[in-house]
This record gives sequence, structure tokens and C-alpha cells, in this order.
Amino acid sequence: MNPPRTDARRHHDPAVRGFASDNYAGAHPEVMAALALANGGHQIAYGEDDYTAHLQQVIRGHFGPTAEAFPVFNGTGANVVALQAVTDRWGAVICAESAHINVDEGGAPERMAGIKLLTVPTPDGKLTPELIDRQAFGWDDEHRAMPQVVSLAQNTELGTVYTPDEIRAICDHAHQLGMKVHLDGARIANAAAALDVPMRTFTNAVGVDILSFGGTKNGALFGEAVVVINHDAVRHMKHLRKMSMQLASKMRFVSVQLEALLAKDLWLRNARQANEMAQRLAEGVRSVHGVEILYPVQANAVFARLPHDVSERLQKRYRFYFWDEAAGDVRWMCAYDTREEDVDGFLAALKEEMAR
Amino acid sequence: MNPPRTDARRHHDPAVRGFASDNYAGAHPEVMAALALANGGHQIAYGEDDYTAHLQQVIRGHFGPTAEAFPVFNGTGANVVALQAVTDRWGAVICAESAHINVDEGGAPERMAGIKLLTVPTPDGKLTPELIDRQAFGWDDEHRAMPQVVSLAQNTELGTVYTPDEIRAICDHAHQLGMKVHLDGARIANAAAALDVPMRTFTNAVGVDILSFGGTKNGALFGEAVVVINHDAVRHMKHLRKMSMQLASKMRFVSVQLEALLAKDLWLRNARQANEMAQRLAEGVRSVHGVEILYPVQANAVFARLPHDVSERLQKRYRFYFWDEAAGDVRWMCAYDTREEDVDGFLAALKEEMAR
Amino acid sequence: MNPPRTDARRHHDPAVRGFASDNYAGAHPEVMAALALANGGHQIAYGEDDYTAHLQQVIRGHFGPTAEAFPVFNGTGANVVALQAVTDRWGAVICAESAHINVDEGGAPERMAGIKLLTVPTPDGKLTPELIDRQAFGWDDEHRAMPQVVSLAQNTELGTVYTPDEIRAICDHAHQLGMKVHLDGARIANAAAALDVPMRTFTNAVGVDILSFGGTKNGALFGEAVVVINHDAVRHMKHLRKMSMQLASKMRFVSVQLEALLAKDLWLRNARQANEMAQRLAEGVRSVHGVEILYPVQANAVFARLPHDVSERLQKRYRFYFWDEAAGDVRWMCAYDTREEDVDGFLAALKEEMAR
Amino acid sequence: MNPPRTDARRHHDPAVRGFASDNYAGAHPEVMAALALANGGHQIAYGEDDYTAHLQQVIRGHFGPTAEAFPVFNGTGANVVALQAVTDRWGAVICAESAHINVDEGGAPERMAGIKLLTVPTPDGKLTPELIDRQAFGWDDEHRAMPQVVSLAQNTELGTVYTPDEIRAICDHAHQLGMKVHLDGARIANAAAALDVPMRTFTNAVGVDILSFGGTKNGALFGEAVVVINHDAVRHMKHLRKMSMQLASKMRFVSVQLEALLAKDLWLRNARQANEMAQRLAEGVRSVHGVEILYPVQANAVFARLPHDVSERLQKRYRFYFWDEAAGDVRWMCAYDTREEDVDGFLAALKEEMAR
Repeated sequence: MNPPRTDARRHHDPAVRGFASDNYAGAHPEVMAALALANGGHQIAYGEDDYTAHLQQVIRGHFGPTAEAFPVFNGTGANVVALQAVTDRWGAVICAESAHINVDEGGAPERMAGIKLLTVPTPDGKLTPELIDRQAFGWDDEHRAMPQVVSLAQNTELGTVYTPDEIRAICDHAHQLGMKVHLDGARIANAAAALDVPMRTFTNAVGVDILSFGGTKNGALFGEAVVVINHDAVRHMKHLRKMSMQLASKMRFVSVQLEALLAKDLWLRNARQANEMAQRLAEGVRSVHGVEILYPVQANAVFARLPHDVSERLQKRYRFYFWDEAAGDVRWMCAYDTREEDVDGFLAALKEEMAR
Repeated sequence: MNPPRTDARRHHDPAVRGFASDNYAGAHPEVMAALALANGGHQIAYGEDDYTAHLQQVIRGHFGPTAEAFPVFNGTGANVVALQAVTDRWGAVICAESAHINVDEGGAPERMAGIKLLTVPTPDGKLTPELIDRQAFGWDDEHRAMPQVVSLAQNTELGTVYTPDEIRAICDHAHQLGMKVHLDGARIANAAAALDVPMRTFTNAVGVDILSFGGTKNGALFGEAVVVINHDAVRHMKHLRKMSMQLASKMRFVSVQLEALLAKDLWLRNARQANEMAQRLAEGVRSVHGVEILYPVQANAVFARLPHDVSERLQKRYRFYFWDEAAGDVRWMCAYDTREEDVDGFLAALKEEMAR
Repeated sequence: MNPPRTDARRHHDPAVRGFASDNYAGAHPEVMAALALANGGHQIAYGEDDYTAHLQQVIRGHFGPTAEAFPVFNGTGANVVALQAVTDRWGAVICAESAHINVDEGGAPERMAGIKLLTVPTPDGKLTPELIDRQAFGWDDEHRAMPQVVSLAQNTELGTVYTPDEIRAICDHAHQLGMKVHLDGARIANAAAALDVPMRTFTNAVGVDILSFGGTKNGALFGEAVVVINHDAVRHMKHLRKMSMQLASKMRFVSVQLEALLAKDLWLRNARQANEMAQRLAEGVRSVHGVEILYPVQANAVFARLPHDVSERLQKRYRFYFWDEAAGDVRWMCAYDTREEDVDGFLAALKEEMAR
Repeated sequence: MNPPRTDARRHHDPAVRGFASDNYAGAHPEVMAALALANGGHQIAYGEDDYTAHLQQVIRGHFGPTAEAFPVFNGTGANVVALQAVTDRWGAVICAESAHINVDEGGAPERMAGIKLLTVPTPDGKLTPELIDRQAFGWDDEHRAMPQVVSLAQNTELGTVYTPDEIRAICDHAHQLGMKVHLDGARIANAAAALDVPMRTFTNAVGVDILSFGGTKNGALFGEAVVVINHDAVRHMKHLRKMSMQLASKMRFVSVQLEALLAKDLWLRNARQANEMAQRLAEGVRSVHGVEILYPVQANAVFARLPHDVSERLQKRYRFYFWDEAAGDVRWMCAYDTREEDVDGFLAALKEEMAR
């Protein structure tokens, strides 16, 4: 069959894979196929389409009967919409110092939403009730931005995964203090795969009020959703999404991707593949003398410390990022499309460069 | 050939078309094909990919050698990023009272960017130097938000199209007053088709500093771009885009869509089809006694006034929106995928309902 | 008695008065005396002082038993704090196009609070239910900033005064539509004096939810207060005031000024003097052929149209501002310290310049 | 002589003094006398008055020939205006974790100006080039808020004082990295008194670009000023001040207070008195067994650790605040009006309560 006509051309080599980010991967073929299904004819714009309606059922299957999804474009958008939803103008958000919302969103929470982040250093990216207490005070003190929300990431920026009980303890603590809980789930599928539990087990079952569901890293072209579990905590989500520049006109194309991931088990297959490849990578790395793994490898990230010059040589063969260049720390990410041969090839290269 | 596997299902009837919005249409098949080309393997995230690099050549072909595209998600995002780029914290933007940025973006310019809009009533959605002068004063007056930008839409929210000379006059006037010019090109392709000139003829050739290029209404799934023509007017566009939640991680999928539209003539074919269908519709409507066309039909929109009950009955057969319900004004939009039979069917229905 | 020592020196001629603004006047001697009373010793900062406590009684005497005052620094601050208090993040405020918040606050509502203003042209600066309806729609439309508040100024920027019934009609209308009412009372004392009624008659008696009380133009050095009447409409006013940079540390000095004005009748004496002088001025102007008075003179402002060259010559003798220079419109303001001889001198000068 | 008439009454006991805050003090009598000088007649509003003009000479005397003062209402306002002046929309500010802008301004920098603060823990409230480097990186990384400014406080929130050389090192470092330096001088007079140098010695002489000058704690009723030293670093200060709700209409009353403080040596007399009383207090405390002084006492603050119950009993006799209640840390502040007998009385009370 001839390929369908297009004036665009292929500019890249689809055989090349690296370990820089799960965002470097493309879209899963099943997601691509879903786009085609949703195409054709006219559908109401801005979320009144049949795909977004159907997505609600799928979301409720994963996150419980109260869950409602508000598809958005990207992770920063999901987080900023969600945090606005659960903060007043005077509200602040407690999060880990290493949280994506703090270090990797260009200041979007502060700039776009005027939200102050109250950060806490953590050993492994994970908050605890005790760590939260370092910022959870002063609600009556007008001189202090009022802590109204705890935002945790599952999994964390450091590749670690909370147990359901750990999240329950955080939610209970936050709720007792009158705060809401937001879960940044840019990689929530990887966390569920790591824990081998449904996503609801560590979200609505333990008290999470609102979350950002990440589709992009899980195999979509783009597309995330703010999922509201506790509707008492929010109002006028649609207005918030629109004014935050996160309302897709042809929303069917966001929703059908999320449906493709979540209707059956594509989300889980993709997450498991990424996690397993990270385990394979970590196991291989552990056998390489002189390379230290920095955090528990629980999802699809491997953080390691190795000689700087080795990293630089290795980067010429495989793309990846320094995490803390001064310390020699690097991050190696596996994606849903990382294969065993990719990992093995990388390990071989690592060993070669370490041996030079 | 069996369709590719996906767990998503078709939820809509692709045969149904209406006249509600050019956002109701899906994506053009050639755009879909382009997505597949760009898929596979790893590409650098956040805009360092080969598709975004190639897009720059394509954009320069349309908007001149200085043009640089910053792909974003949607039209509101494009406008808010572009307006931030050309305003200081104390800046204000002069626009038509009917402008999309004023009436249809949920207050995003004010809320997300703190930009005050200085609006001017217009007879047909089009600004003129004289109309601009109603708000263009007081630069030294700290009590007044400082007018720094004129934002015009080509075509306008009311379906009217500026001639290149009209835009040149606005740009000259704005520049003489020390202001920049932003062009909201959510439907720029329709304007170019209507004028039968290249897009550069009414943008960089006449002094536009920055524009929002609209891909979504032109046949993309989603995807727009801020196009900077005058680089002296802006700084740090990438930071602005990121902090505005408009940075796509897998940007290749935005860029390749824009490439599919712009590499050859798909953008123009799509725009012409929509415009021609609007002309066909307008001609048909003019023959219906009791229906008044409100503005010159120059692009893909037909605004009409007709009895309210007729509209309500007609809406049960074809989706479209009231524009001013009290006045009985409606808007009928043609999309790139509107066909002659769609228009003729609609006209027949209109005549039937008028005759009841 | 020797004057108290100070290293500061007098730099101005206290005999000079003009008609530029009621802000050009200094502070009333009784206000100055009040400052001395409040001085000395230590008082709790940030509003927990005895003067702020006592002010609440005084405010309740004027604005009813539910009224609570939140002293702030200036009028823009009062308005922006008050409007934030009664809008959600997605809220918009309906106001007259000529409103101070729209034209004279440097865009502070938009920039500092992200509030969109939905403006309505008015013949005389006064809103009506019908005028409000031009912007009061679309609450369910996420594409539109949600109208949540009507803000009216009493008296208006054009020197006109609402009757209590007119404000009642606005409040009833707004409340029926689910909106709150804010009253910008930068010159509320002048309005009360003009109407010869207590301030409560046109505020809490007719449904105003929150207001900005203006002390500065009424004879204070500085100092305004947000007065909350309907506490159901607001939350956490103190946090809002602090984060809006309007929390005075030595608040006793704001509160005691307001007490000096409001404890007995200084507020009214001052307002009456200003209003009477404006009447005297208007009467005199009416006898000058070639000078047209533009709006009803109901408070302390006289707007007039006269030959441009006459205004320019007159400005060399008395300071005042053009309101619309192209049209030849000027504004003459009387202050609490304007005397009969000031008015008579000005009228004589006007006649001389008209006769040249 | 009879006191001047006023309807306000005295509500407090001017004999009571505490150690809670230098904001608890009233205004210095010489400042009060200055207000009277500036009163009477009409002066141009909004900063075009003769007092604000004259203030510029006084400011240049202290801060060098390029210095220009922009009087504002309060310290938070001064800081937020100053930081906006030296940051772009995408800019961030590096400061100590304990900085007033971070912990005590209700999130005003983030909410009102969208500024992200990049904080660094410090042992004593003081930044160093090395500490700054913990946040000074990533200027080209759009995912990171761009560090554009270092903000230091002189003296710090912890009562410590930078030497001129320490500030010079910070300024040199910041400038080499392309950043500007803001100095929060809410207590700058105390720092100058502590160092026994002119204020210019540790500001314009060592590279500070912009500073917040604090008048309130130095003996004013209210009133601070943003002082611009490096005019290349800022634009349109007046617009920024106005839109930030910090523009006083009757500015003569702010400016004359600053003149009273700065024209000769009142600022220094006041600061020295406060500092000397803190030294007296610290010396006395050091002789009390069981009370630990926490930081070097260099200005007018004494931080101490003592048994919690002692603090609670002592608070019934003298007002002061816990700084870290869990740790038993308290802050004792001396003001310009603190007298030897106040300190001695407090020390006696402390000893009594420690002995119970």
C-alpha cells in the first residue's frame, strides 16, 4: 500500500533511541490508530465531543465513581490548572524542593497563578508528614502565604515511588490540617506498574483530592488530564482550564489518546516496559565498578554517579542529561519503547567508556 | 488491510457536518499522514527535534528570512505568549472590542499575563489608525496602562479581511507612536486565500512584528505557532513559552503538522475550500427573503440575522451558534472539510424553516 | 511657642490653592492633631492596635452593625483588595468605561489581581441595570471571563451622584444575577453631603456588599479603608490586604485619621465645603458666556468646555487639568480647603481670560 | 496651650513599651513636626510636589549622584516594586531562605509580580557568593526561572550585618553572572550605625543596583522609598509604582518624613539608639544563666533561646514574639524609642522569671 500523501517529509532516523527522557519517545502505534478513529466529520469543540464524554467512563474505571477528567495539553498545564483549583488567591503549596513544579516548570505556578511554593528538602524526593510539618504552620498569619495544598509526585522526580500507605499518611495529615492533596502523576502509570496495584489504590482510595494524569510519557503524542476526585474541593474547572490556555478546541484528539491508553491495558504495558528496562539497566550498572546508583530504582529512571569524563564520552554515543553536573550525577530514563537491545547496547558502551 | 489495533473505539458519526465552527472539523488526512512520518525512534524533546528545525525553513518561506516559529498548543496560548513578548509589565494592548483576545479567551491575557486590553468599538471588527487613536495616548501618564502594542486579527472575528494596505497603515501608525503590532492569525490562511496573496504580503511586508499562526482551524489536530518577524521586539521567547505552559515536550508532533500544512499548498487548499463554501453559502442565503447578511463575507464566516424561531428549528438539524441571541444574529462557519453538498443541504433546510 | 524641631524645611507656599484635584490639598488640622494623639509608646503593629479596634465602632456607626473596616494606604489599593475579595480567579468586574479602576489605576486590577474589567460606556459615569446587562451574561461560558461583581463609584469620576434608589436598583439587579456589588467610595463623603443622607443610606441600606472608603480626599494625609458589609461575600481579608502590599505596620496612624474624620462630623464638614465651593464655582461659570458645563454638578467637580487657548492661559494662573484636550474639556475640582475667595478669584481670572 | 481640636481620642497608654518589633514604636517627634511643615495649601499630587523634588537632593547626598528615590508606602511595596524593576517576566530572584521577601510578605512577590524566589539556606541570614552559586545557574534553560537578581537584606532578618566588603563580593559575583543586586534596606539605618559608615559605603560604593530604603522602622509614621542607583537597570519606575498600588497621592507627606530623617542625622541618631539598646540588652542577657543568644547581635535585634515557660510568663509582662516556638527561640527588638530603663526593666523581669 502506498503511504498516504503528505507534503511533510521524514527528517529523523526512527532507529535511534537514547536514555535522555521518556519525552524523547514518539507515540505508541495504538495511540496513533486511535487518532484515526476519532477523525472525520464534525464533533463539538472544546470538550463537548463524544470522545471526551466517553473518556469520563474510562477515567471513573481507574479513579473511582467520583472522578472527572479535564483533558489538557501538557504536564505543566495540568499542574497549574490543578493547583489553581485547590488554592485561594492567598494560598501556598507545600512540595518537595526537587518537585517538578518547583524546579522544572519555568516558574509557571508563581507567574501564571501567583502560587507560592513552600519547599522542603527531601532525601529521595518523597514527602512525609514530618517533612510537611516543616512548612505546615501559620494559617492565621497574614504575613505568611497560607499553606492550603500538599503536592506530591508519584513517582517522584528522583524515580522513587510512594507506597499507598505513605500517600495515605500524607493525605490524612494534610486533611487534618485543613489542606488538600494534589498528586502530580506525570508518570503515574509507572508508579502503578512498580507497585503492581491499580492507580486508584494510591489516589482516591487513600485520599488524594486532585491529580494530574500524564499521557505524554505513557505513549501519547501529547495530552494529560486534570482528574478531580474530590469535587467539594474545586469549582468551575472549565473556566480555570480555559483561562489557563489549556483548553483544546479539537479535544476529541486528546481524549481519544487517553482512551487508547486507559481503555484496557496499554497504559500498563507501556509503563511496565519502561520500568523493566530501567531494572535491566540498573542491574547492569551495578556490575560496573565505579558507577554508583543514587536512589532506589523503582520506576523508569536510573540516577547514577560516575566520572565526568566518562559521561561526556558516553553522551556522544547516547543522549542523556547530567542531573548535577558538578557532582557527576546523571539521569538515565527508559521509555515505553526502550528495548532490551537498547539497554544492552548502552551498558556495553558504558563499560567500554569506563574501561578507557 | 486490517486497521491497526487500538483499544479506543469510534464514538461518532464521521458523516455529520455542521456550520458551528471550523474547530468542529477533524484533522486533514495529509496532516494525519505527517504525524506517522514523524513518529518512531527518539527525538530531542522540547523543540530541539529535527521537525521543529525544519519547520523554520518552511516558516521563512512564508514569512520572510527573519521569521522564526515557536510552536505552541492553541490559539489562546499563541496570543498570550506573543503579547507578553512585546509588552513590558506596565504595557497595554489596543484591540477591537470584538477581538478574540478580549471576548473569547476567558480573560487569559489579563489573568495569566497581567496585560490590560484597551478596546475600541469597530463597525466590522477592523481597526484603523483613527480607531487606534482613541486609545493611543498617555504614554507618559503613569496612571494609565501604557499602550505598547496594537493587536489586530486577520481575518477578524467578524469574518472581515484587512487589505495589505490597511495593515500597512496600522503598522506605520503604530510604529510612529512607538508601538509594536501583533497579528492574531488564527485564520490567517483564510485571509491569504481571500486576498489571493502570500501571507507575507500582509505581515512582514507591511510591518507586522509578531503573529500567531493558526494551524488548528486550517486542518491540524491542534497546533499553532508564535511567529516572530521583528526580533528586536522580543527576548527570551523560549522562556516565555515554557512559563506560559505552552511548551510541548514531543514538539515534533506539532511541528510536523505545521510542515504538512505549509510545506506546499495544503494550507491554501484548505483555506480556499472553506472560503468558497462560505461564498456559496452566502450566495444561497442572499436569495432567501427574510435573512440578512450582516458583514461582508470575505473569508469562511457568514453572519446573518433571521427570525429567532427559525434559527432554533434550524439548530435542531445543523449545529451553529447564536452570535447575539437578543438581536437574532447567528454565525455560520465553513471549515476546510465543508463540501458543496453540505452547504446545499443547509440552504435547503434554511429555506424550509423560513417557509414554515 | 517655638515650633518643634525638625531638620526638614518648608519648601512650598501654603497660600497657593488651585482647582486641579482634591488630592492637591493637604491634611485637615484636626487630622493632624489626631496623629499626635495616637503617637507615643508602643502599639501592636499590623492592625492589632487600639486605634484600629476603636475604628470598628466608628465604622459600624456609619455603615451598620455588620461593617468591618480594613484600613489600607490608598484608593487603588482599596479597590484592588476589595475586588479580589469578591472575585474568584476566573471572575470579572462590570464597571463604567469611565471608572477610575478602568482608566486611572495603571492597570492595577488586571496586573496585580488578574481581574478582567467588562466596561460599559455611560452618558454620565453612572451605571444602570440596563447598562449592566450589556456585560452581564455568559456565566456558564468558559470562554468568557465570568461577571461576578458590579463596581460603581459614588460619586462617579464625572462628578455625578447616584440616588440611593439608583444604587438599590443596581444592587437588586446584580444580586438577582448572582453578582456582588462593590462601591468605590474615594469621594463617598462628597456623595453623602450632596444627597444629605447618611452614608449607610446608599450602601448597606440598599445592598452594597463591599466598599472602598476614601479618607485622603476627605482631609487625611493618606488612608482609605476597605469596608466589608456582607461578610458572606468575602474570606481572609487580612491575607488579601497583606499580599496586596496594603498592610500598614504602624496602622494606628491610618486608623486615627479615619477616626478623626468619622467620629463626629469632620468628614461631612469637609465634604460640604468642597461641594458648596463647586456649586459656587458652577454658578459663577454659568454666567460666563462661552463656557459650557458638561455634567450635572452634584459633588465637588465641575467639568466644563471652553476655548483651548483660554484654558492654557488660565492654567498659568491656576493649576487644573484637561479632561479631553482635543475637545477642550477641563475638570475643576474643589477640595475641603477651597475657600470662597479661591473660587471668586478663579472666576475673575476665567472672565478675564475669556475676555482677552 | 490647648491641644488642637480633634474628634479622635487617645486610646492607648504612651508609657508602654515592649520588645516585639521596631514597628510597635510610633513616629519620632521631629518627623511629626515635619508633617506640619509640609501641610497647608495645595501641592501637586502623585509626586510632582516640592517635597519630593527636594528629597532627591537629600537622597543623592546619601546614595550618590545617580540615586533617585521613589517614595512608596511600605516595605513590602518597596521590595515588590524594586524587584519588578529589575526582573523580566521570566526572571527569578535569589535570596536567603530566611529573607523577609520569602517568609514575611504573604507571597506578595509571587502573587503580585509573578516573581519566583530561589532560596538558599544560610547559617546567619547572610548570602555569600558560594551560597548564591547554589541557585545561580541555568540561564539558558527555559525550564528554569531565570536568575536575574540577588536580593540581600542589610541588616538581615536575623539581625546580622554585612560588611561593605561582603556586599561588594556579592555584587561583583552577581554582576559577573549578569545579575543585578537589590538590597532590602528596611533597617538600613541600623546597619549603617552598626558599621559606623555612611549608607553609600555599602550600597552604591560596592555595586548595589537598587534598594528599598526603610523609613518606618527608623522613626516615620510610614514611608519607604525605592532608591535606584543604577538607572541602566530599570525603566519606567513610575508606571511600576503606580500599577503596584504604591503611589501616594499626597506624596509630600511621605517625602517630608524621609527628609526629616535624612536631611541631617535623625536617621543615625534613631538607629544608634536602637542598636545601643540591643547591645545593652544582649550584654544583660549574657549574664543570665540558661538564656542563649543565637546570632551575633550587630544591629537592633537580639535572638535568644530560653525555656518556653519562661518566655510565656515574660510575654505577660512585655510583648515579644517567638521566632521558632518549637525550639524555644524568641526575638527581642529594640526601637529608636527604646530607653535604658526599658531595657533594664526587661532584664530584671527576665531574671525574675528565669529564677521562678
